[in-house]
Amino acid sequence: MTFDPATLVYDDRGLIPCIAQEAATGEVLMMAWMNAESVARTLETGRVTYWSRSRAAFWVKGESSGHVQALIELRLDCDRDCLLALVEQQGPACHTNRRSCFYTAVRNGAEVEIMAPVED
Amino acid sequence: MTFDPATLVYDDRGLIPCIAQEAATGEVLMMAWMNAESVARTLETGRVTYWSRSRAAFWVKGESSGHVQALIELRLDCDRDCLLALVEQQGPACHTNRRSCFYTAVRNGAEVEIMAPVED
Repeated sequence: MTFDPATLVYDDRGLIPCIAQEAATGEVLMMAWMNAESVARTLETGRVTYWSRSRAAFWVKGESSGHVQALIELRLDCDRDCLLALVEQQGPACHTNRRSCFYTAVRNGAEVEIMAPVED
Repeated sequence: MTFDPATLVYDDRGLIPCIAQEAATGEVLMMAWMNAESVARTLETGRVTYWSRSRAAFWVKGESSGHVQALIELRLDCDRDCLLALVEQQGPACHTNRRSCFYTAVRNGAEVEIMAPVED
């Protein structure tokens, strides 16, 4: 079946969450949002392209930082309302310069930082 | 720092997305939603508890199917608006009886099923 981004289920803002996972290691890097056009651009260009809610603009990941995400494979879930992008991440995915945005764990009721920023 | 579910960033429905990842393998199993109370219950009980938007009720994963998710560790992202639950999944995570909800890949412009249902 031909894939059409219009057949995904978007929220009332026209957005769908996309989880980025490092293809080689399985590490979950981040979650951000896409609209139908950014899904199409991601597939066309092979560079993961989100929709920035704060800037209300397309966000080609790494365009300014160089920390690009090359798309290895895009997957969708059973309800067609969430995406999983397997990627090859250049450098840190997080704007805090950490490899993953999920660097805080809850352990014994406390927040623990489990990942340090990458040194430039 | 003590963790307080009230300090997370919820959307206008009071919900936050939670990604479930198999702790042992790194496989991304599903994404569902939590409210502050389901975050608290997940941590208290060690059983991942979502908020079902369709039923408007707490959803203790596997309560009816037996396909429970034992919480190994809960993590939060840099913006505090997305959760990552490392879990030990009993049986399939997906209601279609597949291990993961992300069983459809987009390859060469077409949807490809990459995972078969588990046999009971």
